[in-house]
Amino acid sequence: MKIGFYQFSPCFGEVPDNLDKILAALQGAQADLIVLPELPFTGYLFADRAELAGLAEDPKSSPTVEALVDLCRRQGFHLVTGFAEKYSDKIYNSSLLLGPSGIVDVYRKLHLFDREKLYFDPGDLPLRVNSVAGVKIGMMVCFDWIFPETCRVLALQGAEIICHPSNLVLNYCQQSMLTRALENAVFAVTANRTGEEKGLKFTGQSQIVAPRAELLHRAGVEEEILFVTEIDPAKARDKMITGRNDLFEDRRGEWYQQIINDEL
Amino acid sequence: MKIGFYQFSPCFGEVPDNLDKILAALQGAQADLIVLPELPFTGYLFADRAELAGLAEDPKSSPTVEALVDLCRRQGFHLVTGFAEKYSDKIYNSSLLLGPSGIVDVYRKLHLFDREKLYFDPGDLPLRVNSVAGVKIGMMVCFDWIFPETCRVLALQGAEIICHPSNLVLNYCQQSMLTRALENAVFAVTANRTGEEKGLKFTGQSQIVAPRAELLHRAGVEEEILFVTEIDPAKARDKMITGRNDLFEDRRGEWYQQIINDEL
Repeated sequence: MKIGFYQFSPCFGEVPDNLDKILAALQGAQADLIVLPELPFTGYLFADRAELAGLAEDPKSSPTVEALVDLCRRQGFHLVTGFAEKYSDKIYNSSLLLGPSGIVDVYRKLHLFDREKLYFDPGDLPLRVNSVAGVKIGMMVCFDWIFPETCRVLALQGAEIICHPSNLVLNYCQQSMLTRALENAVFAVTANRTGEEKGLKFTGQSQIVAPRAELLHRAGVEEEILFVTEIDPAKARDKMITGRNDLFEDRRGEWYQQIINDEL
Repeated sequence: MKIGFYQFSPCFGEVPDNLDKILAALQGAQADLIVLPELPFTGYLFADRAELAGLAEDPKSSPTVEALVDLCRRQGFHLVTGFAEKYSDKIYNSSLLLGPSGIVDVYRKLHLFDREKLYFDPGDLPLRVNSVAGVKIGMMVCFDWIFPETCRVLALQGAEIICHPSNLVLNYCQQSMLTRALENAVFAVTANRTGEEKGLKFTGQSQIVAPRAELLHRAGVEEEILFVTEIDPAKARDKMITGRNDLFEDRRGEWYQQIINDEL
């Protein structure tokens, strides 16, 4: 299976231009699944909810989504992309799984970061997995990574590839995603953006990690790059870390109750 | 608060000699809390349960524990130490919290590694925290680290310092413990052993990590060393990673159900 990411620097507020840039970069890509950054069409740092509301779209009636689905159809691949999702009177920092048949699934960021709390609504959909070409993929968005429960819940449902659209500004994530891949024995594609918005610098270094904390590729801080590599998803079905230790069978769920009910 | 570890190479089966070595190394140490490796008195690689049974002790009647408690009393500090614990017809790979008043608490390794499954019983006590000089400490043993739930459950109960006696043979733990410290905003003391037993090499590199994934000190692979440093436990009470993000308040427990109930 060929999976990849596209790392670039979106222009704030320029939805059609950012879309065109993405369409041009992905045209002709030989891949089965490509992950785009968080909020790659709108940009990231909104002044307030009104500004966000003016840029967010309902995926069901979005020309942006329509163009991406067309691309999926022409190329025969799937895309995971960040998306400012308007739904009724709500606005979510979402991730969409798109394919030749249209919108496959939506995930709404559960853990909002910093100023996002000022203008996005917190996610209200379960973490869940979908099959792409027989391979189970899960979605999370940026800051979700710091909560080990996010990847865990996806992996326990069978996710083999964690797709991770991001707009990272702290320096911890890339290294920590090696731990996420290791502890869950999954692949993880972190598609980060580059560049700067109103003084806020993004850290680039998009990466693909394999189950044994193996860094398959990490992009530079500034480069704009489409990177695709071949992986064997079966490696994420093997949870044995020693001949006697299955990372999932060895879990002692009865002793983890506080993770759900932490009012102690 | 002064916390530390003692990294050394135990001699297999030589319980009194290993105890003497530890007593000599810790005599005069200026510390509040010192962590020793996993199974530092018996050694690690048992031929079978019978051999382990001949070396394990009941902490309540153990001359080893008695000598360590005497040391705590003379020095006015607390110790966390690995311990092959005999209890009725069971044998656990345990960690003891010892202080001037005696045995404060016992933790029994929940996640047994590789051959340990052949001769140890799996832990059957909850992960819980204890106060040492007003600071909350939690205990886990070696391979427990790879399950993010272990540190999480301790941290959710208020653990400020994770004490982590270890006999590590894989190369993943030391780096991953930076993620554990970061995601839970806790200190973590990994006390590993050095040396070799029947061809099995231990990775040393005992370390102390601070909440922001900050490596305070990492020992060498081979050196025998008592290391002590001053920390400010209040740093582990501050869970704010940005001005708007509390790592615990931001958790979305209602979406983490699979972690307890993963029969999907």
